Amino acid sequence: MQLGMIGLGRMGASMVRRLLAKGHGCVVHDRQPAVVARLQSDGAEGAASLAELVSKMTRPRAIWLMVPAGAVDQALADLVTHLDAGDIVIDGGNSYYRDDIRRAKDLAAAGLHHVDVGTSGGVAGQARGYCLMIGGEADVVKRLEPVFMALAPGVGAAPRTPGRSGGHASAEQGFLHCGPHGAGHFVKMVHNGIEYGVMAAYAEGLNILRNANVGKGTQTADAETTPLRDPEFYQYEMNLPDITEVWRRGSVIGSWLLDLTAGALLHDPQLGAYGGRVSDSGEGRWTLQAAIDEAVPTHVLSAALYQRFASRGEAGFANQVLSAMRHEFGGHAEKTVDDSK
Amino acid sequence: MQLGMIGLGRMGASMVRRLLAKGHGCVVHDRQPAVVARLQSDGAEGAASLAELVSKMTRPRAIWLMVPAGAVDQALADLVTHLDAGDIVIDGGNSYYRDDIRRAKDLAAAGLHHVDVGTSGGVAGQARGYCLMIGGEADVVKRLEPVFMALAPGVGAAPRTPGRSGGHASAEQGFLHCGPHGAGHFVKMVHNGIEYGVMAAYAEGLNILRNANVGKGTQTADAETTPLRDPEFYQYEMNLPDITEVWRRGSVIGSWLLDLTAGALLHDPQLGAYGGRVSDSGEGRWTLQAAIDEAVPTHVLSAALYQRFASRGEAGFANQVLSAMRHEFGGHAEKTVDDSK
Amino acid sequence: MQLGMIGLGRMGASMVRRLLAKGHGCVVHDRQPAVVARLQSDGAEGAASLAELVSKMTRPRAIWLMVPAGAVDQALADLVTHLDAGDIVIDGGNSYYRDDIRRAKDLAAAGLHHVDVGTSGGVAGQARGYCLMIGGEADVVKRLEPVFMALAPGVGAAPRTPGRSGGHASAEQGFLHCGPHGAGHFVKMVHNGIEYGVMAAYAEGLNILRNANVGKGTQTADAETTPLRDPEFYQYEMNLPDITEVWRRGSVIGSWLLDLTAGALLHDPQLGAYGGRVSDSGEGRWTLQAAIDEAVPTHVLSAALYQRFASRGEAGFANQVLSAMRHEFGGHAEKTVDDSK
Amino acid sequence: MQLGMIGLGRMGASMVRRLLAKGHGCVVHDRQPAVVARLQSDGAEGAASLAELVSKMTRPRAIWLMVPAGAVDQALADLVTHLDAGDIVIDGGNSYYRDDIRRAKDLAAAGLHHVDVGTSGGVAGQARGYCLMIGGEADVVKRLEPVFMALAPGVGAAPRTPGRSGGHASAEQGFLHCGPHGAGHFVKMVHNGIEYGVMAAYAEGLNILRNANVGKGTQTADAETTPLRDPEFYQYEMNLPDITEVWRRGSVIGSWLLDLTAGALLHDPQLGAYGGRVSDSGEGRWTLQAAIDEAVPTHVLSAALYQRFASRGEAGFANQVLSAMRHEFGGHAEKTVDDSK
Repeated sequence: MQLGMIGLGRMGASMVRRLLAKGHGCVVHDRQPAVVARLQSDGAEGAASLAELVSKMTRPRAIWLMVPAGAVDQALADLVTHLDAGDIVIDGGNSYYRDDIRRAKDLAAAGLHHVDVGTSGGVAGQARGYCLMIGGEADVVKRLEPVFMALAPGVGAAPRTPGRSGGHASAEQGFLHCGPHGAGHFVKMVHNGIEYGVMAAYAEGLNILRNANVGKGTQTADAETTPLRDPEFYQYEMNLPDITEVWRRGSVIGSWLLDLTAGALLHDPQLGAYGGRVSDSGEGRWTLQAAIDEAVPTHVLSAALYQRFASRGEAGFANQVLSAMRHEFGGHAEKTVDDSK
Repeated sequence: MQLGMIGLGRMGASMVRRLLAKGHGCVVHDRQPAVVARLQSDGAEGAASLAELVSKMTRPRAIWLMVPAGAVDQALADLVTHLDAGDIVIDGGNSYYRDDIRRAKDLAAAGLHHVDVGTSGGVAGQARGYCLMIGGEADVVKRLEPVFMALAPGVGAAPRTPGRSGGHASAEQGFLHCGPHGAGHFVKMVHNGIEYGVMAAYAEGLNILRNANVGKGTQTADAETTPLRDPEFYQYEMNLPDITEVWRRGSVIGSWLLDLTAGALLHDPQLGAYGGRVSDSGEGRWTLQAAIDEAVPTHVLSAALYQRFASRGEAGFANQVLSAMRHEFGGHAEKTVDDSK
Repeated sequence: MQLGMIGLGRMGASMVRRLLAKGHGCVVHDRQPAVVARLQSDGAEGAASLAELVSKMTRPRAIWLMVPAGAVDQALADLVTHLDAGDIVIDGGNSYYRDDIRRAKDLAAAGLHHVDVGTSGGVAGQARGYCLMIGGEADVVKRLEPVFMALAPGVGAAPRTPGRSGGHASAEQGFLHCGPHGAGHFVKMVHNGIEYGVMAAYAEGLNILRNANVGKGTQTADAETTPLRDPEFYQYEMNLPDITEVWRRGSVIGSWLLDLTAGALLHDPQLGAYGGRVSDSGEGRWTLQAAIDEAVPTHVLSAALYQRFASRGEAGFANQVLSAMRHEFGGHAEKTVDDSK
Repeated sequence: MQLGMIGLGRMGASMVRRLLAKGHGCVVHDRQPAVVARLQSDGAEGAASLAELVSKMTRPRAIWLMVPAGAVDQALADLVTHLDAGDIVIDGGNSYYRDDIRRAKDLAAAGLHHVDVGTSGGVAGQARGYCLMIGGEADVVKRLEPVFMALAPGVGAAPRTPGRSGGHASAEQGFLHCGPHGAGHFVKMVHNGIEYGVMAAYAEGLNILRNANVGKGTQTADAETTPLRDPEFYQYEMNLPDITEVWRRGSVIGSWLLDLTAGALLHDPQLGAYGGRVSDSGEGRWTLQAAIDEAVPTHVLSAALYQRFASRGEAGFANQVLSAMRHEFGGHAEKTVDDSK
C-alpha cells in the first residue's frame, strides 16, 4: 500500500524504513532536502514539496504527518489545499486529542478523513515495531490496516495472554482502533502519563540504593539537624549496573524500561553524562488535566510530572518562600552547605 | 547439592519443586504434615520436626527458611539448638534487613552463617525462576551457588544487555551477591518499593481511561460544584483488555506487570471480583524509612504506599476533619451522593 | 452608595446585611421571593425581577452577581438586556478567571464594565468582613471602593505588618485590585488551592495523633503482613480538642482554620456527624491546571485535591487494578478485614 | 519558682528572659561564658558549670535542658551525677519521643523525674509566649505549672473557642499535659509535620501566582515541547506583598505563618536573600515514620518533607536516571537551557 510521509525526523524516517522493508511504497517529504535524499537512497520516493508529494500519490491518498505537535496545524493548512475528497490524513505525532476532534471536523467539511495515531516505540521501533493507538472512523481505519500491520511489532513480540484463543485480535498484532476521533491520542496520552510514573518509580528506588552508604559519612548535629540515628544500617555500596541486571530476570518489576536502564548504568554507572534536567512533553500534562476533569486521584502520575518540573529548577521560588518563613519564625539562616542529612 | 527447606507455603513449596526438577536433594519441613507429604510424593525427603530435618542432612548443612517475616526469630531460635558450627541458615523470606544484621551477628557467635536472600518471582517462579538478591559473607554465598543457579531464571530469560560480553555474570543468571549481611533484603526491599510505584502508575492510568466517558453523565452545578466544562471531550468508552494488550507490544511501558494486568482484565474487564482493599507488607514501608533516613525524595513511592492505606479506609478521620472544617467556615453540609464531578 | 445584589444565598444575603449595616443602599433580587422578602425586612429594597431591580437603580449602576459559577452566563445574558452603557457588573462568585476575560470582552462591546471579585470569608464574613480580591479596569474598581471598604474587614482585623507605615494601603483594609480582568478570580483560585493544602496538612496530622494508640491493638503477622515492630511507642490516647486548643496560642501553626477545627473537635471529638465525603469546587482543580501550564511543581496542592477525590471513592477502580495485579503475580487474595497494620 | 536552664541559645535565652520578667528565679548555664554573663546582667543567676548550677538550686530541683536533640544524652549523663532523688529534668528541645521514653526509664531508676516539653513559638516567643506540649507523670507536671504558666501565652492570646465555658483549661492558657513520657514531644513532632505541610501549601501557591505572567514569554515548540496553549491567560504581574497582605484579613487562609510571609515579601518581594536550600530537622521525618507505622496516609506531609530534600539537590541522581532512560528509548538529549514551558 502506498503511504505519504511528511516529517522525516527520528521517528518519521525510521517508520518509513520499516514500511519499505515490509514492501510498502512511501512518498516522503521533509523541510530538509538532505533527509529526503537519504530516504530516497533507501528506496522511498522523494518529494520536494507538499504539492509534489500529493501529485505523486494515487487517489484516495493516505498521508501520515510525523511533525511536532506545535507544527501540525500549519502543516495541515498547507496540505489540505492540495488534497482531494476521500483522502486520509493521519496524525502520528503527539497531538492533543482535543485538537484531533477539531481537526477531524474541519477536514470532514472538506470531504477529508482524519485519523489520529499515538505511536510508541522510540528509536528502537524500526527494529521492534511500533505500538499504535488509533482513533477515527472505523472504515477508514480498516483501509489503513496494511500500514498498521507493517508498523506494528506483530503477534510474536509477546507471549500470548492466557485466555486469548482463536485468531489474533489486532491488539495482539500491536495496533488498536481505540474509538472515534481523538481516542488514539487519548490512549497514547495516558500511556505517556503512566510512562512518567513508571520511570519515576525506578528512579526514586535507584536513588535510595545509591545512598545506602550514607552512614559512612560524617554525622552532623546542631539546633536544626538531628544526626542519622542508625548509621550502621547504611553502610552498603550498591552496584547499580548489576542490581538492575539481576532484576531483569524473574522479578516482578521486569520491564523494557528496566532493560534500558540496566544498559545505561552498565555503560556509565554514575550517569555522569546527564545533568538531570528532565524535559516533559504535553502528554504528561494533559493526562493530569483529564484526571482532574474526571475527578480521578493521580498522586503518582502528578508527582512524576512535578519532579520533572522541579528538576529544571521550577520549585525555586517556593523554596525561597520556605526559607524566608523559617527565617521569620525561627531566625534560621539558610545553610550554604548541606550537612543536614 | 542438598538443601533443607523450612516453610512450605506457596513460595517454599514451589522453590523445592524447582530444585528437585534441577536435580538437587531437598529435606523439607512444615508445621502442616500434609504439605510435607505432598512434597515427599514429588521427590523431597520429608521431616516431621526441625530435629529430624537437621539429622537427615550432611554437614555442613544449608537450610533455607521460607516463613513469614514475623515468624523468623522463633524459627531461628528453634533451629539453632540443633545445628553445628559451619552450618548455613538462609532467610529467603521478606525480613527487614536490620534483623538480618542482628541475626547474623547472633549466629556468628555460635559459629553459624547467615545469608539473606530477597526472592522475587511470585507464583510464576517455579516455571520462570526466581530473581535472587543475596547478602552475606562472600565465601558462604559462593558455596550456595549451585542452589542459586537452580532457582534463578538463567541467562536465557532476557536478551543480553548491550555492552555485556564474555562469560555471564551471576546477575545475568538471575542471582546477585549484593553485599554484606542485609544487603540482599535491602535490595529486595527497594525492589518492592519500586513495585508499588510501578503498579500504582498503571492503576491510576487505567482509572483515567475507564472514566473517559464521564462527559456522558449528567452535569451538576450548584454553589459547591462546577460542571465539567467540556463534556464533549469525555465521550470515550475505552476497552481496557484490548488497550493493555496492545501496550504489550512495542510500547515503552511494556512489562511483566502489564502482561499480568492484561490477563486479569481479559478475564474480568470490570475486575468485579476485587473490592479494592489493597494490602501492603513491610517492604514498602521500610523503603520509605530508608529514603527518609537518606534524605532521598520519594514522592512516587510514598504516594503508592499511602494509596494502599487509603484503599483500606485509613484516611477516614482525616476526611472527617476536612468535612468538619468545611462546615465550620462555609456552612457546607456533606453531600451524601457524589455529584461533584 | 447604591448596589444591586442578585443571588441571596448564604453569601449574598450576608453581604447585603453587612452593606446595609454600613449605611449602603441595596436593591436585591433572588429567584426565591421568600429570601427577597427576608432581606426587605432587614432594610433592602426588593425586586421581583431583574428588570425591576435595574429600574430601581440610579445610573450608572453597580450590580453584584452572587450566583453559582455554573449559573453566571445565564444570569448575565438575562441581565444585560436591561442595562445601559456605563453600568458595572460585578461577579463576586467562584467563576473561572478565563470566563471573566471572555465576559469582560463581551460586556465591553455593549459599553458595560465587568469586575471580578474573589470573595473569601465564609459564613463568618458578615461579622468579620470579607477578603476581596479584585480584577478589572482601574477606574471602575476605584468607583466601587465604598462598597469594597464596607465589605472588607478593615485595618483593625490584623496587626500591622512590620515595615508598613504611613496611610493604609487597600490590602491592609482587606481588599485589593489585583490586576486586569480575571486577576481577582485568579488570586482567589490560588487562595482556595492553598486552602485545600493547609486543610489537608491539619487533617493528616490529626489522623496521626488519633492513631497514636495503635500499639494497643492486637498485632497480626502472616505472609502478607508484618507486625508493628514497636507497639510500645504507640500507646498514647491523644485528646484532640485540647491539643488543637493549645496550638491556638503561641504555636507556629496557629490559624483561623485551626480555630475552627478546635471548635469542631470540642463539640464532637470523634466528628461522628461527618462521613468524610469531601466535596471540591472548581478552584482547587483550576489551580492545578494553572500550575501545570506554568510548570510549577505543586505536590502538596495536588495531593490535597486528590485526597478529596479519593474520599468520595474515586480511586476505586485503581485499587481494584492493584488487587488484581497482586492476585496475578503473588496469588494474594484480598483481605476482607483489615488487620494489616 | 526557681528553674535551672541549661543551654542559652536563641530559644533558651529568650525563655529565661520571659521567666525573669514574670518574677521567676533562674539559674543558668551554657558552654559559652559570654551568654551566661549576658543573662546574668538581665537578672539570672549564672553558673560556670553543671555542678555549680545544681549547687545553687534548692531541692527538689527543676532543671530545663534547651540543647540540640543530638546533644541531650551527653548533657543528661553529665547532669545526673550531680542530682538528688526527687529532682526533675525537663527536656524542652526537639528530642525524639522514643528517646524520652528511654531516658525517663533510666532517670526513674535513679529516683529522678523526666518531663518532655515540645516548645513552639520561635524567636517571637519571648514576647508572644510559647505553646507548650508536655509529657510525663501527672503530679510532676503539676508541680511545674507555675513555670508553664509563665512561659505560655496565656488566655488572652486567642479568642475563646465557642462552646468552652467556666474556668479556663490549661490548653486555653497555652500549655497542655498531653500524656505519659514522650507524649509532649510526640504532639510537637506532629505539630512540626503539620507546619511543613502548611508552609508548603503557601509556598506552592505563591509560586503559581509569581508565574502568572508566563504567557508573556516566548513559546517554544519542538519534538519534545508543546507550547503553552493559551498564553493569553497568563499575562498577570501579581504583587505578592499586597496579595499576602490582603489575605491576612477575613480570608479562610489567615494564619501566623501568613503574617510572617507578608512581612518577608514586603521587605524583599523577590526573596533574593534566600537561595532556596531548605533545611529540615528530625520532627518532619519522625512524623512520617509514625504515620507509616500507623498506616495513616500522609500524602501532603510527605510531599512537604521531600520538597525540602529536593531543594537541597537530593533528587539529583533520580533525575539523571530519568534523563538516561529518555535518552535510551527516545534518543532525547538533555536540554541545557530550559525552554520547555
